[in-house]
Order: sequence, then structure tokens, then C-alpha cells
Amino acid sequence: MEHRPIVTLTTDFGVNDHFVGAVKGVILSVVPDAELVDISHSVEAFDLLEGALTIAAAYSYFPAGTVHLVVVDPGVGTARRPIVASNEQHYFVAPDNGVLSLIYSREERIRVYHATAEHYFMQSVSQTFHARDVFAPLAAYLAKGVAPATFGDEISDFVRLDVPRPAAVNENTLRGAVIKVDRFGNLITNFAPEIIPPLFQPEPPPFKIRVGDREITAIRTSYGNAAPGELFGILGSMGYLEIAANQASAAQILGVGKGASAEVELEAKPA
Amino acid sequence: MEHRPIVTLTTDFGVNDHFVGAVKGVILSVVPDAELVDISHSVEAFDLLEGALTIAAAYSYFPAGTVHLVVVDPGVGTARRPIVASNEQHYFVAPDNGVLSLIYSREERIRVYHATAEHYFMQSVSQTFHARDVFAPLAAYLAKGVAPATFGDEISDFVRLDVPRPAAVNENTLRGAVIKVDRFGNLITNFAPEIIPPLFQPEPPPFKIRVGDREITAIRTSYGNAAPGELFGILGSMGYLEIAANQASAAQILGVGKGASAEVELEAKPA
Amino acid sequence: MEHRPIVTLTTDFGVNDHFVGAVKGVILSVVPDAELVDISHSVEAFDLLEGALTIAAAYSYFPAGTVHLVVVDPGVGTARRPIVASNEQHYFVAPDNGVLSLIYSREERIRVYHATAEHYFMQSVSQTFHARDVFAPLAAYLAKGVAPATFGDEISDFVRLDVPRPAAVNENTLRGAVIKVDRFGNLITNFAPEIIPPLFQPEPPPFKIRVGDREITAIRTSYGNAAPGELFGILGSMGYLEIAANQASAAQILGVGKGASAEVELEAKPA
Repeated sequence: MEHRPIVTLTTDFGVNDHFVGAVKGVILSVVPDAELVDISHSVEAFDLLEGALTIAAAYSYFPAGTVHLVVVDPGVGTARRPIVASNEQHYFVAPDNGVLSLIYSREERIRVYHATAEHYFMQSVSQTFHARDVFAPLAAYLAKGVAPATFGDEISDFVRLDVPRPAAVNENTLRGAVIKVDRFGNLITNFAPEIIPPLFQPEPPPFKIRVGDREITAIRTSYGNAAPGELFGILGSMGYLEIAANQASAAQILGVGKGASAEVELEAKPA
Repeated sequence: MEHRPIVTLTTDFGVNDHFVGAVKGVILSVVPDAELVDISHSVEAFDLLEGALTIAAAYSYFPAGTVHLVVVDPGVGTARRPIVASNEQHYFVAPDNGVLSLIYSREERIRVYHATAEHYFMQSVSQTFHARDVFAPLAAYLAKGVAPATFGDEISDFVRLDVPRPAAVNENTLRGAVIKVDRFGNLITNFAPEIIPPLFQPEPPPFKIRVGDREITAIRTSYGNAAPGELFGILGSMGYLEIAANQASAAQILGVGKGASAEVELEAKPA
Repeated sequence: MEHRPIVTLTTDFGVNDHFVGAVKGVILSVVPDAELVDISHSVEAFDLLEGALTIAAAYSYFPAGTVHLVVVDPGVGTARRPIVASNEQHYFVAPDNGVLSLIYSREERIRVYHATAEHYFMQSVSQTFHARDVFAPLAAYLAKGVAPATFGDEISDFVRLDVPRPAAVNENTLRGAVIKVDRFGNLITNFAPEIIPPLFQPEPPPFKIRVGDREITAIRTSYGNAAPGELFGILGSMGYLEIAANQASAAQILGVGKGASAEVELEAKPA
């Protein structure tokens, strides 16, 4: 690594407490020249899927060699394993609870190691703050160039979340869900393009998207190319169908949030 | 540039999503040694004036050569232009929608370029996330030392916001507005000192500031030099008349917020 | 110092305004290679105790030589003194209002200096924003290697907050308070282990913790080792007894917040 090492942080710690500061202090104590980059500390508390979505939407934009620390850890202090994952280009440190599931899907050659080399941890490991005592040191030593296999044995039984996928309601209709609401009130659904390719064709067949009590019949390619107040579908930067409105919050207009049902009905093909 | 390049970020992206992380990843991929500094990601969604006020209150404190990325971009994916602006000391990257208006006012020798050199952009430019695909690479290459004129032709028809200015109600009274409420509940008005110089003299003539249903008749020079609960005017660090209270929120006491009317009446000069 | 200097920031400025950006700009103008680390900008406005708790829970994890800028400053512009404190390992810059009180308790050999060397300040010092005009330059010059004594005379009458301590209600009962609620809804009390050592023994004597209208009779060593919805006590990472629940907010379950009473009753020792 010729430039200084980069370590990103994705957590559910919020920014009101000492948690993020202590974690950064530990990293800098091991590797003082690291560049620390906050991805988000506002993952909803204990929400593994939201953590998985956040890191998945950001990691690939960082330079090769970046270490990504991902801590959403409801099982802190229990037997869940600390893991290190890598495909020699991207490096991840996390609890083994599925928060890296979307990384496993996208990076097929990734290897996962159960970190057991306790001499890399803080001398005194608390049972309440493994981000500081276990994960931060692991991230720091990875950033310093220590090879992932150094920390423990490779494992293949790491935890994968079942990311909810849309299911068929009938021949023409799939029912999915809103999996996230972003800052602008856009409703991110779990309809990825490969699940329903015709929807994202330049000239899609007639379709209806049902969210809340509304039917949406337009797909746009940019937020600004819609009439004010119009609801539309769009392929957003997280890689999923979003329900959006131009300079307005679709969540507010529709009165729905995370977990709401979202259906897509494509017109039956002529026989 | 002898020290490592500095890139600041001012956006309306919030900190709950992947947006800021992806933007930072792109910048670091081009210029891994950049120091990234968040100014604010909490500009109200789509609020160009608030974005303009935030960067204007912070940019001049950074060292010469700093690149300021400013993205409040309701028109993402439409025909609005990406621009690069510079006076050889301060560098800015933004959509051409007026979010740099206060910079144009304060930096008279600034030059503005329409960035069209697409080979500097991400290879595949989305229509939903130009901060990541267009503005971040521009900021990164500027930080790397690429000259602004390299990105496209100089333009003079860049967009300027009409920042609302106080207007005369009668001979002695100007009516302005609260343009921002800060973290402490201070009401920032659009009365700059040059609009009403006597108000900020060491011994101002009698005056009344009307906000909400109250008349304020004191100007203080520090927040702490006022009685608890007293409302007063003060020249704040954004460069405008603020309505404030000592260790209390003027916004809460007055029950008013952004957009509220604010009047200043100076006693008529004796004939 | 061989690596680049590190400056941390702990303030009540929030992240919605220009405050943090301007402070960082000033620091980087003096020492452009500094690594700036946000500990928190969400200390409750003017809350000196919360500021003191936040920096106390984080500073010791940073490498020797780190400069900690701590600004919660209700007295900005009044006669309260700017101070620099150091024990040659940790460096602090703050207003002299007690926000460093917990540092003084933990670092016995710390020396405190009244910073009066105005030529280190910004050329024009406002009365409303000393973080930018006074404290940021002090932190920057410290980070650059200027010795603390350079900024002014050592003082011994610096302000110490009376951190509230639990008091005896009767022979077996101490009454303390909730001094903070963290991001997860854990209630941090002012019961440090040394105040009530038996509570944190591996097999504590029978006890009751009373908070809200509930009696809590379990101590856990990790958040995850409790039944869902169960309330329990735990020694948290701030160094105090916390009232917590597994993957749930104790604050919400109990309906209490900062300032609530918390009592601990230990069973009377057999005579």
C-alpha cells in the first residue's frame, strides 16, 4: 500500500455518544496515519439488514485495500464470532451475524476468517463494547498490512441473512416490500432489476406498482424529470426500484415506511 | 501544493444513507491522500439558499487550495450544468443552480467553468447520483491539481439566486426575514450590517426589532452578556443580525422559524 | 511527533450549521496535515456535564500527543478563561467552565494554563464564536508542537464541576441519578463501581435497583445475555452502572430519562 491506509466505519452507534470516538482512537493508536471515513453511524439500532444495505451501497467506490469496519452487533458479549473477510481487494471486519450478507453475494471470491488471535485485541476485552476492544484493533491491523489469515481459521459456515425477496402473488404480480426509506423520503423496495427486467427497459410494457393505496404507472430515469408531486418508480443508486417524487417525500405522500408492501403487476403477455 | 489536498463536503444528503460514503470513496479512489472534511450534510433537502449560506460561512477559513464540493441538487439528471469555480485560491464544485451565489458575491474575481470533460466523470454516469458520478470526480481531480479550465469552457451566465433582501416598509422601517434557525435556536435574519449600519454602532440610536409578537430593543455583543431569558439582537458569526437569548432558544421563546418576518425600525432622525 | 498530529473535536454545535466546518478550516490553516476526528458534536446545548462525560469516555483511547478540543461554552464572549491542559501525554483545549472536570479527576498530574497569548488567536476575535477564533488556533498550535506553557501562566483555580454523586438514603440504600441516556436507550447512572463494589462482584449479594416504578434485580455482563424485554443492570463502557434491556430501549420501557432518580439497595449484612 503506497498511500495511507483507509478505514471506513458503518455502525448503529449514532453520533451522540462516545462510541465512535473511542473506536477511532483505538484505530489511530495502532495506525496513526489511517484516514478514517464515516459511511454512516445512523443504521437503525440492531438492524442488520439496514447495515448490510448501507455498506453494500458504498464499499465498492473505495480504493483497493480499504478496510471496512461494519458493526451492528446485538450479540455483543455472546458467542457470536468476530470475523474478517477479504477478496484481497476489499477488506471487512464485522460480527458474524449476517451484516456482511450482501457483500458475500456480490464478491464471490471472498474468504471469511474467524478472528481468534486475541493478542491483537485490546488487552482487556469488555463484554459490552467489542467495536472498541475487538473489531477496531482488527481493522487497524488489517489496515497496517497484517494478512486476514493471521487472525484465525477460514470458515465457511458464516451467517447469511435471508434478504427478503419479492414473491409471486399470481402469474403477473410480484409482492415485495419497502426495505428502506432514505433521507429524501424515497422508498427503496427489494425489486432489483434482475427480478423484473421488463420494468427497466427503455419502453416497458404496461405495469402497475402498488404502494400504500396508490397505483404508480410511470418509471422515470431521474428525479427531476417528473411533474411536481407526481409519484414514479426509478432505479435508484442502491440498485433497487425506488418509489419517489420530484422534490418531495414519497414516504410522506403515501404515508408508508419501512416494511410496507410493494407490488408490481406487469400486463399479461398476449398469447 | 505541499501538504495533502483538502476537500470539504456540504450537502443535503443527511448522514443516514450511503450517499456520503459513496462520494468519499470516489474522491479517495482518485486522490487517496486527500483530507476529507464534512462541513454539513444536514442542509434541508433541496434548499439552495441554506446550502449557499452554509458554505459561505465556512469556506474562507480553509487554507488556500482547498476544494469545496457543494451538492444540493434538485435538478440531478436534468439539463442543469455541473460547474467548477475558482479564483485560484478557493475552488468549488457544484451544480449550476445558484448554490454558490454567496460565493460569487464575496469573491469578485471568481471564474466559473461549465464542466463538460466527461472523461473525468465516472465511467458510467447515473441519472440519480451526480454527486458520486460527476461532482466527486471533479473535486478529486481539482484536488489533484488539474486546472479548472481543463474541465470545460468559462461561462458568465451561471445561475445566481436572488437572496432575499430587506425592503422598506416606511421611512424608518425595513422588513426582512428569518433565513435560518441554528442549532441553538438563534434566528438568523437577512439584515447584514451594511443594510442598517447604525444598528451595530457602539451606541445605536433607539430601535425596535419586531419578530413574532415581540419587540426587541437590545443589541448585545455576546450571548452570555444578557439576562437569562432576555431576547436581544446580535451580529452573529454568519455575518447577519441574529435574534438570540442567553442559553435558551429564541426560536422556541418566540415560536417562530425560518421564513418568519423580521422588522427593524430606527427612530426617525431629528429634523 | 512522527505521525501527523491528531485533533479531536467534542462540542455542542450540532452538525446542521457552519460551526464545525469553520473550526476545522481554522485548524487546517495552521496545521494542514492534521487528522481531525469528530468525537461528538451532539452534546446537548450548554450541557457541561454531558460534554465532560463524552470526552472522558473517549480521550484515553487516542495515541499519546493527541489534542482534544472540547467546546461547550455558554459563557462565550464573557470573562471565562480559555485554557490549555496537559500531562505531556494528553492535551486539551477548552473554556474554563468545568467541561474538563472528569479529566482532572482521572489525570492527576495534569497542568492547566490560562491561554492569554493573543497572537496565537485569530487576528480579529469575535465575541460570539471563540471555538473558531480562540480555541481552534490553540488546538492547532498545540498540534504543531507548541508547548502548553507558551500560551500563558499555569493556574490552579480552574473550574471543577460538582459531578453529582449518589447519597445515602438509609444504611442500605444509595440514591443516585440517571446522568445520560445513550443511543440505544441505556440509562447511564452515576453509580461508579467504587461507590458500590459488591454490586459488581461475580456473585453479588441480593440487591434492588429502583428506576421509574420498577425494581431491577439482575446484573448482566453483556447486553445479549438477557431475556428479550428483561431490564437489568450492567457495568457499561462509560464506567458506570447502566440500566439496559436486550435489543430494546430501557429508557422507553421505563419511561424515564436524564435526571431521573436511581436507587440501589443492598441487602443488610447479617449481624
